[in-house]
Parts: sequence; C-alpha cells; structure tokens
Amino acid sequence: MPTAYITRRERFSAAHRLFNPELSDEQNRAIYGECSNDNWHGHNFELLVTVRGPVNPQIGYVVNLKVISQIIRERVISKLDHRNINLDVDFMRGQIPSTENLAVAIWAQLDAPMRDIGVELHCVRVQETENNYVEYFGD
Amino acid sequence: MPTAYITRRERFSAAHRLFNPELSDEQNRAIYGECSNDNWHGHNFELLVTVRGPVNPQIGYVVNLKVISQIIRERVISKLDHRNINLDVDFMRGQIPSTENLAVAIWAQLDAPMRDIGVELHCVRVQETENNYVEYFGD
Amino acid sequence: MPTAYITRRERFSAAHRLFNPELSDEQNRAIYGECSNDNWHGHNFELLVTVRGPVNPQIGYVVNLKVISQIIRERVISKLDHRNINLDVDFMRGQIPSTENLAVAIWAQLDAPMRDIGVELHCVRVQETENNYVEYFGD
Amino acid sequence: MPTAYITRRERFSAAHRLFNPELSDEQNRAIYGECSNDNWHGHNFELLVTVRGPVNPQIGYVVNLKVISQIIRERVISKLDHRNINLDVDFMRGQIPSTENLAVAIWAQLDAPMRDIGVELHCVRVQETENNYVEYFGD
Amino acid sequence: MPTAYITRRERFSAAHRLFNPELSDEQNRAIYGECSNDNWHGHNFELLVTVRGPVNPQIGYVVNLKVISQIIRERVISKLDHRNINLDVDFMRGQIPSTENLAVAIWAQLDAPMRDIGVELHCVRVQETENNYVEYFGD
Amino acid sequence: MPTAYITRRERFSAAHRLFNPELSDEQNRAIYGECSNDNWHGHNFELLVTVRGPVNPQIGYVVNLKVISQIIRERVISKLDHRNINLDVDFMRGQIPSTENLAVAIWAQLDAPMRDIGVELHCVRVQETENNYVEYFGD
Repeated sequence: MPTAYITRRERFSAAHRLFNPELSDEQNRAIYGECSNDNWHGHNFELLVTVRGPVNPQIGYVVNLKVISQIIRERVISKLDHRNINLDVDFMRGQIPSTENLAVAIWAQLDAPMRDIGVELHCVRVQETENNYVEYFGD
Repeated sequence: MPTAYITRRERFSAAHRLFNPELSDEQNRAIYGECSNDNWHGHNFELLVTVRGPVNPQIGYVVNLKVISQIIRERVISKLDHRNINLDVDFMRGQIPSTENLAVAIWAQLDAPMRDIGVELHCVRVQETENNYVEYFGD
Repeated sequence: MPTAYITRRERFSAAHRLFNPELSDEQNRAIYGECSNDNWHGHNFELLVTVRGPVNPQIGYVVNLKVISQIIRERVISKLDHRNINLDVDFMRGQIPSTENLAVAIWAQLDAPMRDIGVELHCVRVQETENNYVEYFGD
Repeated sequence: MPTAYITRRERFSAAHRLFNPELSDEQNRAIYGECSNDNWHGHNFELLVTVRGPVNPQIGYVVNLKVISQIIRERVISKLDHRNINLDVDFMRGQIPSTENLAVAIWAQLDAPMRDIGVELHCVRVQETENNYVEYFGD
Repeated sequence: MPTAYITRRERFSAAHRLFNPELSDEQNRAIYGECSNDNWHGHNFELLVTVRGPVNPQIGYVVNLKVISQIIRERVISKLDHRNINLDVDFMRGQIPSTENLAVAIWAQLDAPMRDIGVELHCVRVQETENNYVEYFGD
Repeated sequence: MPTAYITRRERFSAAHRLFNPELSDEQNRAIYGECSNDNWHGHNFELLVTVRGPVNPQIGYVVNLKVISQIIRERVISKLDHRNINLDVDFMRGQIPSTENLAVAIWAQLDAPMRDIGVELHCVRVQETENNYVEYFGD
C-alpha cells in the first residue's frame, strides 16, 4: 500500500501579544518591538496540518478529510478563532504566544487524536502573515 | 491626457472587538456573535487604495506610487498596524470598528492628502478575511 | 449615512458540460470544444456577491455578513456544490451552463432576498478558473 | 438579453527601465529612483482584460473566451513576453514604459479587434507587482 | 555539482465521483457523502510535480522546464483536462478517483519518463481545493 | 527544546538573460529559447528562506524574524532588486542566471550569516513565475 501525505488547511483570527511577564517592559519592547503592544494586535492565521498513512485500497483514502477537519476544529480552531491567545486558550496558558510556540502546542493537541484514527501527524504549519510561517515536525 | 486608476495595496495586523457600549452585553453578543469576544480578536487586514488622475505625458505617471504609499503609511498604516483599533487609533475613536466604519474612516484620512498631490481618491477597499471585503467610494 | 459595498466570497465544486441540445454534436463540438466533453468535466467555482447599502450608524454594519452568507448558501451554494449543473440544479434547468448564464441565474436567485433584508444586489461574479471570470450587474 | 462583463487574465515577463531621454540622468534618477536602473530590471506582469456585451441566448456566451485570449496573445502578449519594453515593443516605441502608459497602449491594441468581434472593451488592468496595479477604461 | 529540486505547476479541470462499485449505494453515500453524487461533480485540480537532479554547470539547468512541462502535459494533463476521471482516463481505470489514488497514478505515469531525461521524480502533489492537497513521494 | 523551521518570504524584481558566452548565438537560442532574448527580460522573483533551530524557551522564538529579514535584505535583496542579474550582481558574476544557479548562489550568501546568529539554513526557494520554482537544500 502506498503512503500518502494529506494536508488540510484551516484558518483562525485571533489577538495576541508577545510578552514575557518575567521581563521588564523595556526588555519586552526590546525583544518583541511592536508585537508587544500593550493593547494587543491580531492576525488571520492559516493552519496547515499534514498527516501521513497508507492509502486504503478499498476506499482510496488515507483517511476521510472530514474527520481530519473535525479533529482540527474541535481541538484547535474552536479554541483559537475569535479569541485572545494570551488570555482565552487553555493549551497556550503560561506560554508566550509566538508562532513557534503555537505550532508546538497545536502539535500536542493533534498528535494523539491523529494516532487514534490510524494516521501519523507529520507537520503542523502556522502562517502568521503572507511573509512568515513556522513548521513543526514533532522533534 | 488619458485618465488612469492606480491601486496600491498595503497591509496591517490589528486587534479589535465589535461592541456598542450603549447596548447590553446580551445585545452585543446577539448582534456581533464571536466578533464581540471580551478579550478581542484580530486580523491581517489588506487595504487597497485606488486614486485616479490624468497620466502626466512627460513622466508617464499619474503620480509616483511611492508618494501614494507614503501617505497611506503615514495617515493610516502607522496608526493601525500592530494596534488595537478600539483603543489605540485616534481616527476610530468613538466608532464601532466594523470593516464598513474602517473603510469610511480611512477615506476621511486620505481624501484631502490625495487631493493635495493632484489625484482624486476613488475607492478604499478593506479586506478583513479572504472571504470578506468592503469598498467605499466616498458617497 | 455613507453607502458601502460589501462582498462575500463563497465556493462550489460542480460538474457541467456546455451543450445546446438543439444543435448537432458537430456544432456543439465546434462551438464549445473540449468544454462539450460527453462525460462532463468540472471546476472549483468561486462566487463573489457584492451588495450595497447605507452603513447603520448604531451597529456599524450595512448588514451582518452572516445573513448574506446564509442567503447565498441556501439559495445558491447548496444547489450547486458537489452537483452537476446541467442535471441537478433547478434554477439552471433548460439553460446552457456557461459562466455567463450561471452569473445571470445566480443574480435572479439573490436579487429579491437581498432586497428583503434591506440591501441592493450590486454584482454577481463567477470565477471559473484562475484566468476567467464573469460579472453581472443586473442589466 | 442581459449584458455580462468577461475578464481574461494573461501574463507576460518583461524587462524595462523608466527613463525620459529628454531629461538628465540626475532628473531621471530623482523621478524614477531604482526603476531607472541603467541595466534594466523586470517583472512578471499580469494583464486582465475585461469586455462587455449581450449574452447570446443560443450559445450562452458573450463571446468565446478562446477568441478573446487569442486576440490578446497576438496583439499584446506575443510582443511583450520575454522582451524589453523599451527596446523590443513596436506599440511602446517612444513612450516611457510606465504601467500607466502600458495600460493605455494595450487598450489601443485591443479596442478595434474587440469591436470587430462584437464586444466592447471595458477595462485594461496591468498588475506590475502584488502591491500595484493600473486600470484604464478608455477615457 | 549541487542537487536542486525543480517544481512545475500544471492545472486540469475534471469531473469525478467517489464510488466503489463493490459497495452498496448506502455504503458509498456513508463513506463519500456528497462526493458520491450520482451525476458527478468536479474541480480545478492543481498538479505540482517536483524533480531533482544535479545542476548542469554548462547550462545552469537541472533540466529544461519546457521538457518537464511537455512530459506532464502528454502523460497526464491531456488525459485528465476537461475529462471525467472515472470514465475517460486510461490510467485511472478500475480505481476510485480519490486525490490519493490520483497522486499515486500520476507518479506511475511520470516516473519512467523523468528517469529517461536524467532526473528523479521526487514528489507529486495534487491540490483538489484551496483547503486540501495530497503529496506522494513514491513509497 | 523543540526544533522549528522558520520561513521568511522576500521579493525582488530583476532583469536577466539566459546565455552562455562560450556557446554560439544559435546554440544559446536552441537551449534557452525566448529566455535568451538579446535585450533581456525580467521577473518578480519570490524568495523563501527556511532556517531551523531550537525554540528559545524564554523568548518563544527560534530567532527574531526581523534579524532573518535584515540578513536576507542586506546579503541578497539589496543586490538583486531592480537590477540586472547578469550585469549588476557581484555574487552572480560569471554564472548563468538560471533559477537553479540563483538558488545555489543565494544559499552561499546566507549560509554563514545564518550560522552566525545560531540557526541553520535549511532551504532556499526561488520562485520565478507562478508555475515554476527551484529549491536548494545545500547538497
């Protein structure tokens, strides 16, 4: 059975602020610049989740993409969309909401559920603007 | 001299919350739904500004796009990018930061400066997500 | 009250075949070429619907985009998506499913419902491929 | 018969230099900046041509898009693609190759041929980068 | 000699229906949902083919992209574009036309011809909608 | 510490001509076709640079993207943008300006500076048109 990689794109719009509470305001401003604005800012984030697995010969699917999409929406999008990443998102509590940390935390949200449906999570990609994105492969 | 329409795209990332302080929380939630989230949310906004004017035969320009871009950045982007539209933006004070109101307010920011450089503002388009945008033509 | 133009993008994936049953197969092939393939072909269509109206000063909306989206989905997308435009779509019965005819028929589906919610339909744009689109303004 | 607007996108990759030979090098550099680089620079230009006309009820087309595409390729793309706009393009001879002048000159190339096939040229749009485009409507 | 990866994008518009003839209509509907619509549906598919090989120092190419494009068009696009994948495509006969099976079958069409021109096929990516794609790397 | 991959997109508009001075004009024309046009042509190139490294737990960054962007602009974009790749670019001197050679040369420009800031260069991707791109991974 051939192994294929399936990617699903989902989107969320959220506010955040890059800020380390253990550092002074001056240090935060020096490190994060305008991304540390006191009153938050926000983005339309794109999330691309890639899973891999054998193609089921009877069905022609690695897995039904509706199942993938449903897991991503339940575990990730419903918690992030139209929310404040610093304040409203349980799986980001206590973390600086950088794109890197978001990608790693989203991996943790999706890894076990993907395994439960028989596929392996391969990559979580979070695109913050048209010019920047982060990929995490689980290592 | 032929009349041409010139469009410049700029971008800003901002937080906002749709909320009318004269209404109750229930009413706000009923009207704005998740867009009224207490702790804000945000977007990558795209702004497309279209001006029109005669093509200068000696230069081949209606106007140098660098001038257009500079005006948009000074009057609009520098005030909105990495900001909270409800709290941080002078020209949005006291207004509900809907895409419609943003487009109308950006028009007011740009109309006179464009006239000052000899072009007419034709359209302000604000794109909030890949599925939604608002255009304002000054009427 | 300023007048703003609001555009909502929706998408549908459908099969069709350009074919006039009053013409011979040779004539159909001569006019429509490969678009007349006996066994159908298909597209991811993009639909952009633009409405215009005054901006409600208390709410900041011309109209809630969720209402616009709901009307488009009920009246258009639910009938076209994952369907055969020649065979499955009531409002295209007896018409050649060209992009032009689609745009005009979608206008007819949306004109009255938009009026009912207090906005005017301004433009229906149907994009068949990244290189081709048709706009209809109701005339 | 309803009137529809049909848009076809074509692309060309060309070199150019913004330069007015009646002006000094200093003046050219002051007006055009880096766009006046002695050794040229270049772009992937996008050209969007919009025509309008009645929808033929027997065929469902305003006009076959293949005919539109063929005219644009013969009259415009074949002369601009992989060429130097200042040196190689007959219909740009003696003109400063700004986006504005390109749009106006492309209109002149297309206006009569479109009329010959029974449609009216409505708009020529030339997109130079993802942030800049010019539209010309024939006036 | 450095090894580079070259990717060529091609597109095709096709109809299909996800349907396993060994299963009942109810089972097909349960597995494939609306993708199993009796009268077909369709998509604008994007195909991205990546090959790798050493950069020829005298020419600067891994291989001329026109050759890559010609092979893809002859072996894949000419058979899929404006066709029904279930009925019209020799290399998909007897297979469920899922995106996964398409990617694997396109690999089989391209693997030997790419080897014949001295490059190795690295990845076949088939994008069905803006939200879904499948990659196959030959294993 | 998790390892993340960070990608930054930058753009440049440049002229070039594919031409090997050791070959005759006929040979150049045979190999490069219209890309060998005597008077140059040009493109809007997109450059995507991917680096990888551990996520700094105190800051949440692999590295500040502003630093990545600044290095790319100083070492690459400032030398290529609005230039002629054959004539104006020191790091391309004596090389045929194919996309492959560009990607390899850009890698050489960026490899050491990225190491100096504690990240590893993973991939240089140069996109010449919407249909073609080259990736180089350093081997």
